Amino acid sequence: MQSEKEIEDFILNGHKQYLNNLSVDCVIFGFHDQQLKVLLVRITGRKDWVLPGGHVNIKETVDQAAIRVLQQRTGIDNIFLQQFQVFSEPDRSRIDWLYKVLKKYYPVVKKDNWLLQRFVSVGYYALVEYTKVTPLLDMMSDASEWWGLDELPPMLMDHRTIVNEALQALQAGLNSKPIGYNLLPRKFTMPELQSLYETILGKKLDRSNFSRKMLAYEILKTNGDTRKGAARKAPFLYSFDLIKYRKALKEGLNTGW
Amino acid sequence: MQSEKEIEDFILNGHKQYLNNLSVDCVIFGFHDQQLKVLLVRITGRKDWVLPGGHVNIKETVDQAAIRVLQQRTGIDNIFLQQFQVFSEPDRSRIDWLYKVLKKYYPVVKKDNWLLQRFVSVGYYALVEYTKVTPLLDMMSDASEWWGLDELPPMLMDHRTIVNEALQALQAGLNSKPIGYNLLPRKFTMPELQSLYETILGKKLDRSNFSRKMLAYEILKTNGDTRKGAARKAPFLYSFDLIKYRKALKEGLNTGW
Repeated sequence: MQSEKEIEDFILNGHKQYLNNLSVDCVIFGFHDQQLKVLLVRITGRKDWVLPGGHVNIKETVDQAAIRVLQQRTGIDNIFLQQFQVFSEPDRSRIDWLYKVLKKYYPVVKKDNWLLQRFVSVGYYALVEYTKVTPLLDMMSDASEWWGLDELPPMLMDHRTIVNEALQALQAGLNSKPIGYNLLPRKFTMPELQSLYETILGKKLDRSNFSRKMLAYEILKTNGDTRKGAARKAPFLYSFDLIKYRKALKEGLNTGW
Repeated sequence: MQSEKEIEDFILNGHKQYLNNLSVDCVIFGFHDQQLKVLLVRITGRKDWVLPGGHVNIKETVDQAAIRVLQQRTGIDNIFLQQFQVFSEPDRSRIDWLYKVLKKYYPVVKKDNWLLQRFVSVGYYALVEYTKVTPLLDMMSDASEWWGLDELPPMLMDHRTIVNEALQALQAGLNSKPIGYNLLPRKFTMPELQSLYETILGKKLDRSNFSRKMLAYEILKTNGDTRKGAARKAPFLYSFDLIKYRKALKEGLNTGW
């Protein structure tokens, strides 16, 4: 979606191309400077920030729509994407407010416009490599930026709630799914991996327990190399065994019943 | 939904009362005779079985819609209900087939009827006490029965897939959520609880590991009573500590990071 004409067509005729009453919203997490960040976009001409989101084309699955939205917003594909919850409070769409905003830019918009219906949104979270992302803009957004989780700006609708629920789902997911592949450099030390977990969980973890539990997952490999330049006992460098990592992503970590 | 007139009104005017393009489907699991069962309904005048499902009223959340559907189908409320996945393959709705079926009963139906749009369905699974359920019928269903997971009848659309995915979600959930409260009698032995887990997981578990792990969850209580009439060493009777059980249901079992 680029030109003004295309946007107008989307607003006036989108109901023929997209499912009604249904949208997707993506919470894109990146890890940088020991901080968990979220990618937000700002609506053109407004001060409010929202999650990257979009609608579901009549020929797409909901997952495909989310993947498309992410590609359009970050410029990268092959993103780990996890559907986690549907958001459906009847008053979440703030229809009256949206009508005013749309009306301002497109006076031709009527009250029965498809965008002024109630929308149920399917929430996704994604883990991406912070440095690889080039936030992209379109006519409907005039900024796209990373925000630290502790310093999020005011967000429209229930998007702050969606971020909070995504974080909880990510935290819960740590017990059954491997994470880290998109969030860390290719080689990392156990303390660096622990730091990522601690950042996501928002709490300190015991060092030897962490190492023992993580090694038991059998998703790490090392060739005995250590971090060069370390002062005394240099920590081993690990990388993910991608075959085992992807297997665990599909089937769950080997910690269950 | 009871009378023929009400159904006709639902078909012809439902788009004013319900969200378009969105439905819910519920996989209701019960445990009986060491078997996991699923509650299915048969569409009036057809041989095909479907999951109990329904639409989302414009004033309801999606969760509320699922709860309402379950109440209407089972006669009980306070059911443990878990949203687990959205089903959205563009061709899942079998619109041409549905058109023929609708047309047969309601010749007035047109091709642009709201029920003949593509529907994205939010999947839920529920765990209920088999003996407490009285399957209810309405004008659109002429049978409502429990089916063993191993002997499911042919099901319409992607409903068999939804059952399979629900089972996988239930299995994965065993590692983070307590289960059993709605599936077992109030007092039970550790082997009975293990049998429930084994049935859901479809595999045998080591007896002492199971007991150790389950007790570590701290959701069971016992006053030392044993099963009367047992031959030699009678197993202790347990019940769920409901306060701790509900806390774990909300916050996850104490096994995570």
